[in-house]
Amino acid sequence: MSIWGGKARRPNWGECPNRIAVIGAGFGGLAAIQGLKKAPACVSVIDRQNHHLFQPLLYQVATASLNPSDIAAPIRRVVRSQTNTEILLADVTAIDVDRRVVVLADGEVPYHYLVLAAGATHSYFGHPEWEEHAPGLKSVVDALEIRRRVLLAFEVAERETDEALRQEWLTFVLVGGGPTGVELAGTLRDVARMTLAKDFAHIDPSTARVILIEGSPRVLAAYDPKLSESAKRQLEDLGVEVRTGLHVTHIDGCGVMIGDERIPARTVLWAAGVAASPLGKTLGVPLDRAGRIMVQPDLSIPGHPEVFVVGDLAHLDQDGQPIPGVAPAATQMGKHTAKNILRALAGKPSLPFRYVDKGSMATIGRGAAVAQVGRLRISGRLAWLMWLFVHILFLVGFRNRMLVIIQWAWSYLSYDRGARLITGRAEGPLVHGLTDERLPATTQAEAIPS
Amino acid sequence: MSIWGGKARRPNWGECPNRIAVIGAGFGGLAAIQGLKKAPACVSVIDRQNHHLFQPLLYQVATASLNPSDIAAPIRRVVRSQTNTEILLADVTAIDVDRRVVVLADGEVPYHYLVLAAGATHSYFGHPEWEEHAPGLKSVVDALEIRRRVLLAFEVAERETDEALRQEWLTFVLVGGGPTGVELAGTLRDVARMTLAKDFAHIDPSTARVILIEGSPRVLAAYDPKLSESAKRQLEDLGVEVRTGLHVTHIDGCGVMIGDERIPARTVLWAAGVAASPLGKTLGVPLDRAGRIMVQPDLSIPGHPEVFVVGDLAHLDQDGQPIPGVAPAATQMGKHTAKNILRALAGKPSLPFRYVDKGSMATIGRGAAVAQVGRLRISGRLAWLMWLFVHILFLVGFRNRMLVIIQWAWSYLSYDRGARLITGRAEGPLVHGLTDERLPATTQAEAIPS
Repeated sequence: MSIWGGKARRPNWGECPNRIAVIGAGFGGLAAIQGLKKAPACVSVIDRQNHHLFQPLLYQVATASLNPSDIAAPIRRVVRSQTNTEILLADVTAIDVDRRVVVLADGEVPYHYLVLAAGATHSYFGHPEWEEHAPGLKSVVDALEIRRRVLLAFEVAERETDEALRQEWLTFVLVGGGPTGVELAGTLRDVARMTLAKDFAHIDPSTARVILIEGSPRVLAAYDPKLSESAKRQLEDLGVEVRTGLHVTHIDGCGVMIGDERIPARTVLWAAGVAASPLGKTLGVPLDRAGRIMVQPDLSIPGHPEVFVVGDLAHLDQDGQPIPGVAPAATQMGKHTAKNILRALAGKPSLPFRYVDKGSMATIGRGAAVAQVGRLRISGRLAWLMWLFVHILFLVGFRNRMLVIIQWAWSYLSYDRGARLITGRAEGPLVHGLTDERLPATTQAEAIPS
Repeated sequence: MSIWGGKARRPNWGECPNRIAVIGAGFGGLAAIQGLKKAPACVSVIDRQNHHLFQPLLYQVATASLNPSDIAAPIRRVVRSQTNTEILLADVTAIDVDRRVVVLADGEVPYHYLVLAAGATHSYFGHPEWEEHAPGLKSVVDALEIRRRVLLAFEVAERETDEALRQEWLTFVLVGGGPTGVELAGTLRDVARMTLAKDFAHIDPSTARVILIEGSPRVLAAYDPKLSESAKRQLEDLGVEVRTGLHVTHIDGCGVMIGDERIPARTVLWAAGVAASPLGKTLGVPLDRAGRIMVQPDLSIPGHPEVFVVGDLAHLDQDGQPIPGVAPAATQMGKHTAKNILRALAGKPSLPFRYVDKGSMATIGRGAAVAQVGRLRISGRLAWLMWLFVHILFLVGFRNRMLVIIQWAWSYLSYDRGARLITGRAEGPLVHGLTDERLPATTQAEAIPS
C-alpha cells in the first residue's frame, strides 16, 4: 500500500512528506533508485541526460562497433514501473544542504534525503586547452566525436598526397594506459587491420600506428603486475606501440610532446585523468585532491546524515585503500544507500558500507583481455570470453542485450563494424583541428604500389 | 581483365584514360557506381557523407525506432569489391563542364564522364527563417535533431506547471502531407499513445496533439484519390488531426499561422517542399522552376553528352508527366546511365531512358499504410505488411536488414522504441527555440488527477 492512498496512480509530489532526490542516473544513482522502488516516499531523479549509459562499453561506440542506443537505456523506461518516482531532465547547479534543496539552472527540488551520484568528468591536469585536441570518453557525445575523428582521419589520409602528412593522419595517440586507454588502443588496431583494411584505394589502413602513452611504469596499474605485463604483450601482438613511464607535456592539433620528443599525430585521444563532479564543492565539506567528497562510513557527509554520496564522487577508504571508482563499487554504494534511507524512514540507524571486490577485467581487442577474480589471474581468449559474458549480463534491458550479442557475433564473424558513420558538425568544415589546416589540395595522383 | 594489367590491385588514377566522376552516393549515384563495376575506367565517387542513406526509413530514426547506422551503410563497404573505384569525402562546389573537372572546396577531380546525382534539399518557399523552427528530414543529422526535439518536448511538458504551456509542448505540427509528413504524423501518434504512454508521472503523453497541414486538397496528392481518402481516415484513426487545403503563413518558436488562425505548438516539423541541389546551376543549362536540370532523353545535358544527371536533380517528362522524385526512379536512372557510359566506352550511341513505375506505397503507422501497384489499390494492414517486406528487401546490406527486422519485431511486440536518446548540443542549453524561452521555473507541484 502506498502512503498516498489506493486510487492515485502517482503521488502528489508537492504534498509528499518524504521527498528523496537522486542526482545522476549512472550506476550508483540507478541502483539507489531501484532500491527505493517500494519506499513510502516521492523520489525525484534529476539528470542532464534522458538515458542511463552503460559506460564500460562506451569505447565500442567510439570505435564504431555499437550504436549509442545499444548501450543506453531511457531512464524513464528503466524505472517505468516505479510509480513513486519522477524523472526530471535538468541541470543541477548546486546543493543547498542548509535549506535542503537541489538548485537547478531553472528551479529547485526540495528533499528530505539526498543521493548525490553525479560522477566524474575528464581532467586535463591543469591543461584545459588540451581538451579540444584530445577528446575524452565519458558521454555518448564524446564517443560520437571520437568515432568521427577516427573515421575521418582515414578518409583524409586517403586523399592526402604528401607521404609525411599521410603518416600523421594514420597515427593515433592514446594518452593514458588505464582500462579505457587499453581498450581504445587495442580496438583501434583491430579497426585498422581488419575492418578497414580492404576499403581504401590509396592507403593501407593496416599500417596505421597506434601509440599508447602511460605515465606510470605499467599499463593497467590497478591490476596485478603479471596481468599488466600480459596486457602489454597482448597489445603489442595487436600492433600497438606501448610506451610507459612517460608524461605528455604538450598537445596540439598536430601531435603530442613527450619530454623533448615530438610525435606527429592528427588524432589524439584522452584517457588519462578524471576529476570529480564540481557539485561536490557546493556541499561545503572536505574533499580529497581529486575533488571527491570524504564520506562517512555510511556514505553520508559530515553533519548531514540525510545526504549520501555514491559512486565516483565518493571517497571512502577501506582496508587502507580508497574504494576504486568502478561500476560495481558505484552499484553497491547505490544499493546500500537505498537500504539506509529505507532504514531511516523506518526510524532505524544507518549501517556502514563495505565494498565487495568481485574481480575486475579489461578487454584489449579481438580475443585479448585480462581478468583477476580473487586469486585467479587470467589472460587472453578465456579472459575475453569472460569479459563478453559479464558485460552482456550486466547490460540493462533485454533488447539491448540481444542487439549487442547479434552485433558482436556479426563483427566477430565478418570483421565488419556496423556503425561506421561520420556524423555531426553538419555545417562546419569536414575536418576538425587547426583552422589553418585544410583537406589535401589535390586528389590522389599516385596509387600505392601493390 | 583490367586495363591496368593483372597485378595491380588498384588503377593509377592520375594516368587513367577513362575517368568517371560520380557526385553523390544516394540511390541514383550508388546504382550508377555499381553498374560501373566492370567498366574499364577509373571511377571517383565524391560525397560529403561517408555513408549511403536509405532515406525511406529516415523517419524511423527521427521517431526513435531505428539507429542511424541501421539505415546507413558506409559507401566504402558497399563498393569495397570494386577495385576500379575510389571514394572521396569532399564538398563539391561547382562543375566546370568546359574544362571537364569537378571543383571541390579543396581541389579538383577531372573526368571524361560525369554522373551528377546530388539530389535535393529542403525548400522553405522563400522563408529560410522557418528552417530553425521547423527542421526538415533529409540527413542523419536532421533525423537526430527531430528525435531530440520530439523527445525533449515531452520532457519539458513533464516539468511544466502552466497548463497552457504544457499543451503547447504536447502539440506537434507537421507541415506537408506527402509521404514524409504522413509517416511522421502517424508515427508520432504511435510514439505518444504507445511508447511513451506510461513513462511519465505528471503528463499523459497519449493526449499529445499531432496536426498535419497540407496545402493541396488531399494528403498523398501523388496517389489515387481513394488512397488519399483512406490515408486520411487511417491517420484520423490514429488520432492525427488532418487539415488540408491550408497554407502555413508564418512559423516561429511557439507555433504556426494558417491564414489568420494561430496554432500554438513548440515542435513544428517540415515536410513540405524540396529544392534541387544548387550544383545544377553551375552547369549553365536550362533548369525547371524547382531548380532541376532539364535533361535529354538519355539523361545527358544539352551540348554535353558526357554529363549525365540522375535522381531528384533530373527533370525528364514521360507521357506528359515529369518522372517522380522517388528512390526507384533514381535507381533506374543510375543503372541506365552506367549502361550508357559502358556503351560510350565501347563506341556505341547512348539509349533513351524510360521509367518503369512498379508502384508506390506510404506507411502511416502501426498496421496502417496505402499502396498502389498497377491497378491495385490497397489500404490498411495488408499494405503495411507489403511496405515492411519491400523496405526490408531493398535495405542495403545483410546486417542492416537483420537488425532492422529484429528491432521492428521488438517494437511491434513490446510497443517500445529502442533509440529513445536525447543527444547533441551537449554544451548548449537543454531546450531549443527562442532564446527568451526557458525551462519551466519550478518543478512539478501537482500531479495529474488519475
